[in-house]
Amino acid sequence: MAKPLNIGMIGYGFMGRAHSNAYNRVSDFFDLEYTPVLKAACARNKEAVQAFADNWGYESIETDWKALVDRDDIDAIDVCVPNNLHKEIALYAAERGKMILCEKPIAMDVAEGEEMCEAVEKAGVANTVWYNYRRVPAVTMARQLIDEGRLGRVFHYRANFLQDWTIAEDLPQGGAALWRLDAAAAGSGVTGDLLAHCIDTALWLNGSIADVNAMTETFIKERVHQETGEKQQVTIDDACTFLCHFENGSLGLFESTRYARGHKALYTLEINGENASIRWDLHDLHRLEYFDYKDEGKLRGWRSIHVTDHGGEHPYMDHWWVPGLQIGYEHSFVHHVADFLDSLAKGEPCPPTFRDALETQKVCDAVLASAKERAWQNI
Amino acid sequence: MAKPLNIGMIGYGFMGRAHSNAYNRVSDFFDLEYTPVLKAACARNKEAVQAFADNWGYESIETDWKALVDRDDIDAIDVCVPNNLHKEIALYAAERGKMILCEKPIAMDVAEGEEMCEAVEKAGVANTVWYNYRRVPAVTMARQLIDEGRLGRVFHYRANFLQDWTIAEDLPQGGAALWRLDAAAAGSGVTGDLLAHCIDTALWLNGSIADVNAMTETFIKERVHQETGEKQQVTIDDACTFLCHFENGSLGLFESTRYARGHKALYTLEINGENASIRWDLHDLHRLEYFDYKDEGKLRGWRSIHVTDHGGEHPYMDHWWVPGLQIGYEHSFVHHVADFLDSLAKGEPCPPTFRDALETQKVCDAVLASAKERAWQNI
Amino acid sequence: MAKPLNIGMIGYGFMGRAHSNAYNRVSDFFDLEYTPVLKAACARNKEAVQAFADNWGYESIETDWKALVDRDDIDAIDVCVPNNLHKEIALYAAERGKMILCEKPIAMDVAEGEEMCEAVEKAGVANTVWYNYRRVPAVTMARQLIDEGRLGRVFHYRANFLQDWTIAEDLPQGGAALWRLDAAAAGSGVTGDLLAHCIDTALWLNGSIADVNAMTETFIKERVHQETGEKQQVTIDDACTFLCHFENGSLGLFESTRYARGHKALYTLEINGENASIRWDLHDLHRLEYFDYKDEGKLRGWRSIHVTDHGGEHPYMDHWWVPGLQIGYEHSFVHHVADFLDSLAKGEPCPPTFRDALETQKVCDAVLASAKERAWQNI
Amino acid sequence: MAKPLNIGMIGYGFMGRAHSNAYNRVSDFFDLEYTPVLKAACARNKEAVQAFADNWGYESIETDWKALVDRDDIDAIDVCVPNNLHKEIALYAAERGKMILCEKPIAMDVAEGEEMCEAVEKAGVANTVWYNYRRVPAVTMARQLIDEGRLGRVFHYRANFLQDWTIAEDLPQGGAALWRLDAAAAGSGVTGDLLAHCIDTALWLNGSIADVNAMTETFIKERVHQETGEKQQVTIDDACTFLCHFENGSLGLFESTRYARGHKALYTLEINGENASIRWDLHDLHRLEYFDYKDEGKLRGWRSIHVTDHGGEHPYMDHWWVPGLQIGYEHSFVHHVADFLDSLAKGEPCPPTFRDALETQKVCDAVLASAKERAWQNI
Repeated sequence: MAKPLNIGMIGYGFMGRAHSNAYNRVSDFFDLEYTPVLKAACARNKEAVQAFADNWGYESIETDWKALVDRDDIDAIDVCVPNNLHKEIALYAAERGKMILCEKPIAMDVAEGEEMCEAVEKAGVANTVWYNYRRVPAVTMARQLIDEGRLGRVFHYRANFLQDWTIAEDLPQGGAALWRLDAAAAGSGVTGDLLAHCIDTALWLNGSIADVNAMTETFIKERVHQETGEKQQVTIDDACTFLCHFENGSLGLFESTRYARGHKALYTLEINGENASIRWDLHDLHRLEYFDYKDEGKLRGWRSIHVTDHGGEHPYMDHWWVPGLQIGYEHSFVHHVADFLDSLAKGEPCPPTFRDALETQKVCDAVLASAKERAWQNI
Repeated sequence: MAKPLNIGMIGYGFMGRAHSNAYNRVSDFFDLEYTPVLKAACARNKEAVQAFADNWGYESIETDWKALVDRDDIDAIDVCVPNNLHKEIALYAAERGKMILCEKPIAMDVAEGEEMCEAVEKAGVANTVWYNYRRVPAVTMARQLIDEGRLGRVFHYRANFLQDWTIAEDLPQGGAALWRLDAAAAGSGVTGDLLAHCIDTALWLNGSIADVNAMTETFIKERVHQETGEKQQVTIDDACTFLCHFENGSLGLFESTRYARGHKALYTLEINGENASIRWDLHDLHRLEYFDYKDEGKLRGWRSIHVTDHGGEHPYMDHWWVPGLQIGYEHSFVHHVADFLDSLAKGEPCPPTFRDALETQKVCDAVLASAKERAWQNI
Repeated sequence: MAKPLNIGMIGYGFMGRAHSNAYNRVSDFFDLEYTPVLKAACARNKEAVQAFADNWGYESIETDWKALVDRDDIDAIDVCVPNNLHKEIALYAAERGKMILCEKPIAMDVAEGEEMCEAVEKAGVANTVWYNYRRVPAVTMARQLIDEGRLGRVFHYRANFLQDWTIAEDLPQGGAALWRLDAAAAGSGVTGDLLAHCIDTALWLNGSIADVNAMTETFIKERVHQETGEKQQVTIDDACTFLCHFENGSLGLFESTRYARGHKALYTLEINGENASIRWDLHDLHRLEYFDYKDEGKLRGWRSIHVTDHGGEHPYMDHWWVPGLQIGYEHSFVHHVADFLDSLAKGEPCPPTFRDALETQKVCDAVLASAKERAWQNI
Repeated sequence: MAKPLNIGMIGYGFMGRAHSNAYNRVSDFFDLEYTPVLKAACARNKEAVQAFADNWGYESIETDWKALVDRDDIDAIDVCVPNNLHKEIALYAAERGKMILCEKPIAMDVAEGEEMCEAVEKAGVANTVWYNYRRVPAVTMARQLIDEGRLGRVFHYRANFLQDWTIAEDLPQGGAALWRLDAAAAGSGVTGDLLAHCIDTALWLNGSIADVNAMTETFIKERVHQETGEKQQVTIDDACTFLCHFENGSLGLFESTRYARGHKALYTLEINGENASIRWDLHDLHRLEYFDYKDEGKLRGWRSIHVTDHGGEHPYMDHWWVPGLQIGYEHSFVHHVADFLDSLAKGEPCPPTFRDALETQKVCDAVLASAKERAWQNI
């Protein structure tokens, strides 16, 4: 019989849904020592959080997050609130010995993130940050291929995350629904929201970044606030692009924007090694493209691998359906929960930990500084 | 507060899992008058069904399906057993006033299917058959485009369902795990297993079929029985291909096989109309390809539509994540359950009903007869 | 110094241009014992043939094809006229000892083709039929892979040739420009025009066909004659689909139509073998898709091979540019001419010979007979 | 009757072949006032240039390029020699009133290029630089779509040119065959060879670049000289990546490398506008991908346009085959010659002129300076 792990969820937005679904599903598909229990959901708006709790099966609600953290029947806090609230909650929870599963990016900046790392490490509580794309099976498989030494020396890493949902000039900003467009709540624009994902994966697949050289742009300079209706300056970066050197000598190229007409959520990555190359994109996340120079000459070509095989061939896929039947976006969160529960049983950290996520934050901060100062920045 | 609908599940195989997952998830994502309750699971193997019930949260188990059907606390029977058992269970359940959700194909042949239709119609019980691919959003959208009259006169319909998992000569057949390779349990090979899906979608999208002309093949003539270890003749069709005329004057071409190296579960369909054409395939089920001759001449091309938009644009997708984030195979079952529950609330049938599925069975029977007699068969 | 081969071209339509270009280019890119010389072009319309000759560099013109064939300074006759004229010209040319390069299909039917074969064989003249797609490098490479035994036992062969240019009801038919829509000049519709290509490639790649089962359709029943303006019955097949058995035990499926909206000239083929599969399509003719089951399990996927490598890796490509730079449609004709000249030097036949093309004609005739009689036909 | 334009070709390498083919073919497919005559080919190696002249049909040879330029029967000089020789030849030819068709990049640097521009402008001779990719029909069509105002405000332009042919450490450098790997002959590595193409297209499609920020890398530090066998330092850039701002406010991102395993000659470009986006790549150069936000919401998707239509729909294509039949790499040169001849007839410049190409050179120089100084550079 699996041991319960009592979850206290703070926030009920898009990520609150994605995480709740993952907690609800993980035990149906993974046989683990722990099973999550949706103990309580918390948000200031009582009615809204009650509806959320009813929808997902949370046993109770709270409207004060400190009250939630203080509860003895809560083992782990899931932080699904705007970035400017991560630090305070994490510090409070760590002090009370709660495990923390925190949305990304870890914090508003490196200083906050450093405080958070020290807090969880001092408290000795399990911690992880929801960079979910590591656990898309095709991305996990990319890591396996790299670990197996198939690429040889790496020359190039490139990634972009292209969206197009903020092109309309009359889109408002701020408030509960659109806090991602408000630098005061989000810390930055696409850098923290989108590039952070690309950077997390890159550090995981290709190691540390030595220096960066960035440019950012805000295409629409003023927007109306969603709640007050007042015209405000836009303070976030609409687009951010940067060059970098990895410690392993390879060159990096990253781009993110919300102004790439025709792309909804096109996170793509490509790694070029001496012996092999890998490509992946989020719009067809169940596929991995692979080129192997060791293939017989005349038969070399990019292979489109439908990452749905069983028998241990493709990561996580034994738990799902049959070969050929794809899974989707939400499954990356189920995998993250499964790995978190498994790491608890083994007494090991569940990457990316707060400390891992701090490395991504360092790159984000350096990127923003580089763009501001129009100069290379060391990490 | 949603009304409970008590489910009694018979069978615990691949489809048992897919349906159970759908029942468990539907209320998290759809706001409906009814909510499914996993009341009891049933199978002859007590230990196995108990494990299944524990996994998915069924409240109780039965080892005798008649006992399950007889229970007063069961509203609906889900039939997830081999095809040769569908009829008996359906007749028994209908007589006792239970709703029936039956796996496809409806039966071993048209005669059985006809009995089943008469039984549910006489009993007046809700009934549906799990041709799940109708409810992949891209396929549902294909139907909408057709209903909107975008295609004009239809000239061609083609579909195939290509797999490659039975190529190995030493693959055994029969028994609980491999009953799909045993004609006594399955009725036929790829015709009932795979082509039936293609035919169901075709009838839904393009109307009735008038006549068919088929060939079948059994590439491997003998296999060892999985349980007895004895060598047996292979009695199923490994491949089946047929030509047909639709009542609307268009030509049809269908192919199915388990010997197409390189294809795991490649169900593809294409419809060519006077004004527009549509393509879809299961290996990238979140996309629909669309060609519109009314586009400006020089800009005509096949559009790859990532069917993940909200705001009512793309069927079912408002219930899931955000544009650009794909769903997978299992969601088609969630949609089917959602539509079934909705139809209950409205007092309407939930297609494909038994009667609808009988039309597919008629085509399957005619296909097999045509292959046997090497001649055209009218439907 | 290369020996001249004096060409006499009959016809100046689309194929006349394609062949003339091939003759003009071959010596720039291939180092051969023979070089074609454009000696004379022939057609009834003097002004038109003169313009054609001027354009392509023919040294002279004729308006009577017999006069052309009779000329002593002509070595080879290129037959680029409607199908109903092939036989008479070929017989006349063979009798006078001329080599013959004949457009496809070889003739109106098997009887005519048989006469033509006997004539060239009796005369001992070099002969070939312009089934040019064999010499698209990716298709030639498919044959090499098959010859190397990479596929193992073949289970399936499928091909289609889809166009959409005759959908408009007000398109006229007949006359010099649209003789392909007139059965009296073309012999048949898509069967001889398009399926003949598919069949030629299939026989070359997968061996003989044992029997066929076909359906044809004429979607538009009446059209206006292009020259007379009179309304006439449409006598060609607009679409033709057939099932077949190959002698090697594999199943075949062929489809051709001019009513597939969205496809300009989409000739596609796929072969599924026990160990490997191959796909190709004419809309991206420089690519070959290849799946090899012998690849390491988790890395199996369809490879997209850009067939442009040098060093003998990819057929014919050493003669062109550099890897990555594609060639196009017209190059298949250049390759055919190069092979024809090479075969002359070696004293060998240049496939497909008239005799080879007769095999394709046999299948075409059987397909048309099967469609008419609604029954299987042995070849 | 077309007027002759006598060509004097200097060089006989890869580009010498591509241009010669273009001169030989243009009159077969385009009806123009001028027709090129291959008057003389020139190179220091007499035997090699004679073989080249024989192959392509040049009437005579020269071994001293000044002697060639001095000939009265030469109208136009085609400069197909390493970049360090462009200036001297161009100046000499301009002074003698010869038209000049010069390979790209125009020169070793801006200073040389400026001299060349002044020379041809002072002499009033027709001049053009062989940035051939502008005249791939799909790229030309991209320009038309932009000119028609379909994109609206442009936000992003990105391009890369990825190759993988210099990864082997034992590849030699320098000499006649590998001068592109020698900075003394080529001026730079991928910047002048590959990025120059991307920049030329970008300036043509998206206007001027204001500033750039680049990094370059030399992955292999030493190579053996091809002719002397001596080990030497590698002086070229193996990879070059840069960020930029266009004058129209859009952001640019460019990358080029010869170390991207799996890519032979993958030049790709994408432009994201407010209302529409465009993508193209050289590996499938006959296609243009297009996304139009003005399409009906649910039907929006990237269109894959097979750029082979007639009737004036697709640039240049009326001159070739029929819709669906693709052309290849070499045709871009044929189009360039056709446009050059047409511009002569009209007395207009043929872009890109020397002056246009100088703009590309300015960006290249700034890119190299930026990489060296690790700082933004204004153009």
